[in-house]
Amino acid sequence: MGLTVDTINQRVRNAEYAVRGELAVKSEEYRARLAKGDKSLPFDQVISANIGNPQQLDQKPLTFFRQVLSILENPLLLDKEDVLLNHLGYQSDVIARAKKLLASVGSVGAYSASNGVPVIKESVAKFIEERDGFPADPAHIYLSTGASSGVNTLLNVICASKKTGIMIPIPQYPLYTASLALLDATPVPYYLDEAKNWGTDLDTIRKSYEQGKADGLDVRCVVIINPGNPTGSSLPEDDIRAVIDFANEKDLLVMADEVYQTNVFVGKFHSFKSVLRTMQQENPGKYDKVQLASLHSLVGLAPEVEANVYKFVSIMLCAPVVGQCMVELMVNPPREGEPSFALYDKEYKGIFDGLQERAAALHKAFSEMEGVSCAQPQGSMYLFPTITLSKKAVDAAKADGRTADEFYAMELLKATGICVIPGSGFGQVEGTLHFRTTFLAPGTEWVGSIVKFHKDFMDKYR
Amino acid sequence: MGLTVDTINQRVRNAEYAVRGELAVKSEEYRARLAKGDKSLPFDQVISANIGNPQQLDQKPLTFFRQVLSILENPLLLDKEDVLLNHLGYQSDVIARAKKLLASVGSVGAYSASNGVPVIKESVAKFIEERDGFPADPAHIYLSTGASSGVNTLLNVICASKKTGIMIPIPQYPLYTASLALLDATPVPYYLDEAKNWGTDLDTIRKSYEQGKADGLDVRCVVIINPGNPTGSSLPEDDIRAVIDFANEKDLLVMADEVYQTNVFVGKFHSFKSVLRTMQQENPGKYDKVQLASLHSLVGLAPEVEANVYKFVSIMLCAPVVGQCMVELMVNPPREGEPSFALYDKEYKGIFDGLQERAAALHKAFSEMEGVSCAQPQGSMYLFPTITLSKKAVDAAKADGRTADEFYAMELLKATGICVIPGSGFGQVEGTLHFRTTFLAPGTEWVGSIVKFHKDFMDKYR
Repeated sequence: MGLTVDTINQRVRNAEYAVRGELAVKSEEYRARLAKGDKSLPFDQVISANIGNPQQLDQKPLTFFRQVLSILENPLLLDKEDVLLNHLGYQSDVIARAKKLLASVGSVGAYSASNGVPVIKESVAKFIEERDGFPADPAHIYLSTGASSGVNTLLNVICASKKTGIMIPIPQYPLYTASLALLDATPVPYYLDEAKNWGTDLDTIRKSYEQGKADGLDVRCVVIINPGNPTGSSLPEDDIRAVIDFANEKDLLVMADEVYQTNVFVGKFHSFKSVLRTMQQENPGKYDKVQLASLHSLVGLAPEVEANVYKFVSIMLCAPVVGQCMVELMVNPPREGEPSFALYDKEYKGIFDGLQERAAALHKAFSEMEGVSCAQPQGSMYLFPTITLSKKAVDAAKADGRTADEFYAMELLKATGICVIPGSGFGQVEGTLHFRTTFLAPGTEWVGSIVKFHKDFMDKYR
Repeated sequence: MGLTVDTINQRVRNAEYAVRGELAVKSEEYRARLAKGDKSLPFDQVISANIGNPQQLDQKPLTFFRQVLSILENPLLLDKEDVLLNHLGYQSDVIARAKKLLASVGSVGAYSASNGVPVIKESVAKFIEERDGFPADPAHIYLSTGASSGVNTLLNVICASKKTGIMIPIPQYPLYTASLALLDATPVPYYLDEAKNWGTDLDTIRKSYEQGKADGLDVRCVVIINPGNPTGSSLPEDDIRAVIDFANEKDLLVMADEVYQTNVFVGKFHSFKSVLRTMQQENPGKYDKVQLASLHSLVGLAPEVEANVYKFVSIMLCAPVVGQCMVELMVNPPREGEPSFALYDKEYKGIFDGLQERAAALHKAFSEMEGVSCAQPQGSMYLFPTITLSKKAVDAAKADGRTADEFYAMELLKATGICVIPGSGFGQVEGTLHFRTTFLAPGTEWVGSIVKFHKDFMDKYR
């Protein structure tokens, strides 16, 4: 018989990862059919609003970054600096940066140290220092193959058994539940407060923790996603303080998923590290033992624990070096007065403003749709509206073997080619329905398609 | 207290990964001291013979590959085709390939499908077809973040519990034991036959299997590394046939780690897939249910099992797209008659011949060293010589808290700056001692350093 689905690792079988599940696969089928000239579909393009993938849509790469990377890939270009400068529009700072990076990595085709190229980790530390106003130590920075890989590493080190409880927000990015399922550890869910723009609520967190303890779990970590995914929220400083205070009281490791920190439209991004350091300054001694892993740096981990983080990442050798170099460029972009600054600044602002405009336009459309309400867009690249559907629609979903939000998302895909993810993929309060959409797709036509589909759907199942 | 090394995941704590362990870390310290001008060390450079990292040493990247990648990173270069052609020496096929790849990936800054870019998987399938003379289906090809990640995915899906037994060669690449430790599955070691140039021996494999069964294990997979790591062997077709026959008899999944297939100096590389297809052709029906996962393609897995492979990789989203494009270039290099062929061919052969020469030179040096013997270099980038040390040396190692091969490797590093990995990191027959070295470092001076160190060491502990 060999290997069958009944004999494989059942933790893999049971893991769910909605972001790349049935809807995403179906949308790719539609895309392939359209590419082959199929005219039988009621739409002429597929809009992938299911994952945050800006450059799959129309977002242009930043020129400075890509110019530097082109030289890293082909260092022989440095033999023709005059051609780069005079015929290809490369500025002198592009060439200088490429030389600096090549001097430290040697070749982007070589493995680096497992925790990352030292020079790049120094740039990251400097970036964190400038962001937070507190010192950062490159020794506690690990460059990973994307944030998903970083989360995977940390959870592998933290989760010791089925009794390990990890507090995760609901709704959450499903990487967390999927990774916990693979590791056979137990999620301890706490709900975000939709009425407070998907902020954290300390009472809820406390009750969830107590429930975890009552269930016999060793609750040892609280995960916060800020800016929010899928919620699009941005936490105020007071929420962050409350979480740190609670983590200190209960000896929890704080895992702060801060990958969307650049995309904040309302107020200002507060990093967990800067807030922790501020609290430590204000209350000498009180918060010294707080352990924090941000998806930028590790703070306060025991050296032997960190050694195991190192060992885990070393088993996969190292993160792709081109990606590591891209991190260096991201944390150390052209500064005012440097030759590439004007273009970089224009492109960067264009992307940021464009995202904010699209978020606002989509939010406005949702606010005018029957039975839909949506928190104000504050950051990241997502909106997570609530939808209220009729009993008739819920029954139709049941007959189709789906939850109501899955049914709604599938019908939306079939009618418009727009792929969103149902709220059940992220978790939602029992009895409520949501979906997550990115606001990355260009133009307004697709927003109009959602509005029209929604009206038809509501009418059909009234 | 928060997280301590005693409360973390003990499977991570217990995993061992010698390739990037204490010796590697110490060698990096030496490298940093030399870079800072430290003159107190008895050598003036560190030679990292511990991992196969050719471009960290002097191996030059292949021009065609890097030219294409430079355009993928900065597609705006395509606005200046004349400059590329007339001033930078790019050939027309470089530009054509970059256009083809960009048309299918869109942007290398975008996520791809989780199992890889479809057009690239088609190129891989074509490469396998030409290599083997049998059809290959892109649907069963997964592009992973390196082979380590592919092995990790497969083992995650295969290993269901502590009772799962995975047959691994000894010596082995320690990725396997480390991954099995993390997954809490059980390695079922079988020894390679040093006297037969580190080939497989069916009797040994059978006894090892029976032992695993007697220990109550559900033995479900046999791993073969060919060309060998750390052994530098290349399996004859008969060995491969015997393994497939045995796997068929016992319903074992064959996992063939074939990453070094290009580097074969003696005879010819036989892929497990081509041998399996040949056996199926010769014996209709007999081998139909053999399941094979090569680090190039999956054959015969149940569709539902493969769906779980897909889900597992999708949790990490997708392999880096630049790396995927590099795979396309590797499997589909310039052909005779194409403008870039002459340079590509010259560079490729230069690397191949250089490796073979270095392997031969190192092998010759080993053959002249007292108490050292080494199988003929056949492939990959490694040699794995046996060393016989005196009782006095073994006692000195014990006093230092190390095994004798660890002690030897550490003394070698301290005296010469050459970093190799002791055989115990890969496994070896009880009572024997080995080390693994790459033969990538340029020049012959470092070989001389090993010879001299060895003589001094033998004299000191005579």
